[in-house]
Amino acid sequence: MDFEQFFRDRLGDLRAEGRYRVFADLERQAGRFPRARWRERPDAEAREITVWCSNDYLGLGQHPAILRAMQDALLHYGAGAGGTRNISGTTHEHVLLERALADWHGKEAALLFTSGFISNEATLGTLARQLPNAIVYSDAQNHASMIAGIRHSRVEYHIFRHNDAGHLRELLASHDPARPKIVAFESVYSMDGDIAPIAEICDVAEEFGALTYLDEVHAVGMYGKQGAGIAERDGLSHRLTIIEGTMGKAFGLMGGYIAGSAAMVDFIRSFAPGFIFTTALPPVLVAGARASLEILRGASDLRRQHQARAQQLRQSLLAAGLPVMLSESHIVPVRVGNPVACKAISDRLLRQHDIYVQPINYPTVPRGTERLRFTPSPDHDDRMISTATEALRACWREHALPLAS
Amino acid sequence: MDFEQFFRDRLGDLRAEGRYRVFADLERQAGRFPRARWRERPDAEAREITVWCSNDYLGLGQHPAILRAMQDALLHYGAGAGGTRNISGTTHEHVLLERALADWHGKEAALLFTSGFISNEATLGTLARQLPNAIVYSDAQNHASMIAGIRHSRVEYHIFRHNDAGHLRELLASHDPARPKIVAFESVYSMDGDIAPIAEICDVAEEFGALTYLDEVHAVGMYGKQGAGIAERDGLSHRLTIIEGTMGKAFGLMGGYIAGSAAMVDFIRSFAPGFIFTTALPPVLVAGARASLEILRGASDLRRQHQARAQQLRQSLLAAGLPVMLSESHIVPVRVGNPVACKAISDRLLRQHDIYVQPINYPTVPRGTERLRFTPSPDHDDRMISTATEALRACWREHALPLAS
Ligand SMILES: Cc1ncc(COP(=O)(O)O)c(C=O)c1O
Ligand SMILES: Cc1ncc(COP(=O)(O)O)c(C=O)c1O
Repeated sequence: MDFEQFFRDRLGDLRAEGRYRVFADLERQAGRFPRARWRERPDAEAREITVWCSNDYLGLGQHPAILRAMQDALLHYGAGAGGTRNISGTTHEHVLLERALADWHGKEAALLFTSGFISNEATLGTLARQLPNAIVYSDAQNHASMIAGIRHSRVEYHIFRHNDAGHLRELLASHDPARPKIVAFESVYSMDGDIAPIAEICDVAEEFGALTYLDEVHAVGMYGKQGAGIAERDGLSHRLTIIEGTMGKAFGLMGGYIAGSAAMVDFIRSFAPGFIFTTALPPVLVAGARASLEILRGASDLRRQHQARAQQLRQSLLAAGLPVMLSESHIVPVRVGNPVACKAISDRLLRQHDIYVQPINYPTVPRGTERLRFTPSPDHDDRMISTATEALRACWREHALPLAS
Repeated sequence: MDFEQFFRDRLGDLRAEGRYRVFADLERQAGRFPRARWRERPDAEAREITVWCSNDYLGLGQHPAILRAMQDALLHYGAGAGGTRNISGTTHEHVLLERALADWHGKEAALLFTSGFISNEATLGTLARQLPNAIVYSDAQNHASMIAGIRHSRVEYHIFRHNDAGHLRELLASHDPARPKIVAFESVYSMDGDIAPIAEICDVAEEFGALTYLDEVHAVGMYGKQGAGIAERDGLSHRLTIIEGTMGKAFGLMGGYIAGSAAMVDFIRSFAPGFIFTTALPPVLVAGARASLEILRGASDLRRQHQARAQQLRQSLLAAGLPVMLSESHIVPVRVGNPVACKAISDRLLRQHDIYVQPINYPTVPRGTERLRFTPSPDHDDRMISTATEALRACWREHALPLAS
């Protein structure tokens, strides 16, 4: 087989569909977020632009106290962890952060992973595979990393309609009560910005004795009195068997984790290949995450500003007649509805208006729902919001796209 | 089902088998490697010990030039990348490191992942799933991350006897010549320290038109004139379709990558969920890896010292009659042969001799081959080597374990 030709053909298909991805070559600048420098080509000169699609939701990636903690850790511990968690890679920083995360979520224990992706993949995969004859119930819009874990386990699984506890109930009721069951879902869905009915889902899961697994990746740091997520906000943390989160978004860093009972965490620690067979997070990141967590616990004001900015952008775009998609959270998606226009508008915004918002195409969202996904932070100011609104309005005109009714 | 009871029972099984894992709580100290501080319990006072099982093989995790590059990056870019590679997470540092890695391996392109684990899982998984009707041939001792990728793809796969090109040939010859074939293996096997016959495996793979995938995780930085691995050392880089490496071991940091043709890399970039749906590596790690790579390219002296230290430790242990396992590389495994003794000796070394070497038990190595795996670095000095030899000798006596004949 001609492998090279095969690769080129498949890439050609993506191009033909208008969903070949071009990564924007950025230079973040600590202290100037959401401004950044962008290069059209690797060797081109950099130009300053405004980033509108970062998941550094609160701008903590440039917080001086976090950078200071990281600098101290770097000089004290050095660069990497030097091994897997079991073979010389567990540092005292890991131990302390796991404690702090458990405490934050009101759980007995927590476990760090190298990413949110691998925490989902490894935990769900291991649970499904190890629990004898398990069945998994997965929300229709669950993230690729949860789907990976579920599929890789090769157990029976059923998909319930998005945020539909009634449909989940039907499915649960139709299977053998004796079999162990896992219900996997998210709190804030990142592409639409809607929020799961956690209490209803827990009601149903409890009725059938199912374990509950909640991905709070797009909520930790941003919801709840102490920022521990939607489950905290809604007073439901104790009803979830496992809460999963990331340090890659509101924390401003990288890494993932789960929190739950001591036995569950010890079980995953002991049996999940994606946890066991990989180099541990560098102490510099772990120390940064500890500093970030401390800030997040007391960041109610920042959370209010964040929501206010999201509301302000939403209102501004709506007032301009742009097709803003309904969202209950800090995420502001604007529907375009086809991949070619979506990419063209994004390119025009970047090149002509110094505004960077990545086109979101299939497979990240369903075909026909291609969108620009704005993630306003507390650092996006009034002028940035009005500039973005005008630029978007101009693009809509130039591409003759329909406005909202 | 009583989930908690299930978790506790399974953990009880591990304990009964003597392979329940206890992580050593360490504090690395930049500038003092391989010395570190160890805590018996999280709240105990720390004691200084010598680490003998780090995969920071060359001690670069404390190299001043790398720490300086990381510090600069931290102050310049801030903490995290802020998004997936596609959605605002590609920084100029990523672009430059991918170029440098490609150049190092003599390949057209390279692609970064958050870990070596996910680079293997995602790349092999995606290739196997996407190539129509593929067959995978996997060395019997391949790492868990490669096995994960292969199994998750659910394609037909065959295991060839460890390092046995003849057996691989038999298997390749017995299947439909028209089907696309992938041969996956490692260069340095990390638990035994033996090295693959890369030329022979490439001969066979080429004869049957198979794609070759080589994991050089335990070789990059340490073998070859410029440190690009065993394939470079043996002048074979051009014969491998894909070379995979990590920044978590000799680089002293964290992260993984693949290198190969531009089309192959673009294909994996475009289709691998484990690459697409996860937050990018923080610029601080990427900048550190660039500095590390620059040092590694010119580190022939360091590589010589490293090999000399490994040889010195091996000789010292052999002279004391300890059952050192044959190894062609920098890895010095000492066989114990049962999990309980292995753990007990490791505990005794740590508590009584201030020597930390983690017991390696099933499933990391086959049952009955439990071992202590020493990884001497250029920073382990003569005194550390003689102290370790005496301590090990004392443990062997106390546990009445057999010496080598
Ligand atoms: C819902 C959800 N879960 C998990 C992840 C993965 O987290 P991480 O970026 O830390 O790998 C993401 C996004 O990246 C996500 O959107
Ligand atoms: C052969 C091999 N491949 C891949 C990996 C994974 O690399 P990383 O630690 O960067 O995840 C390891 C060890 O961790 C390994 O030993």
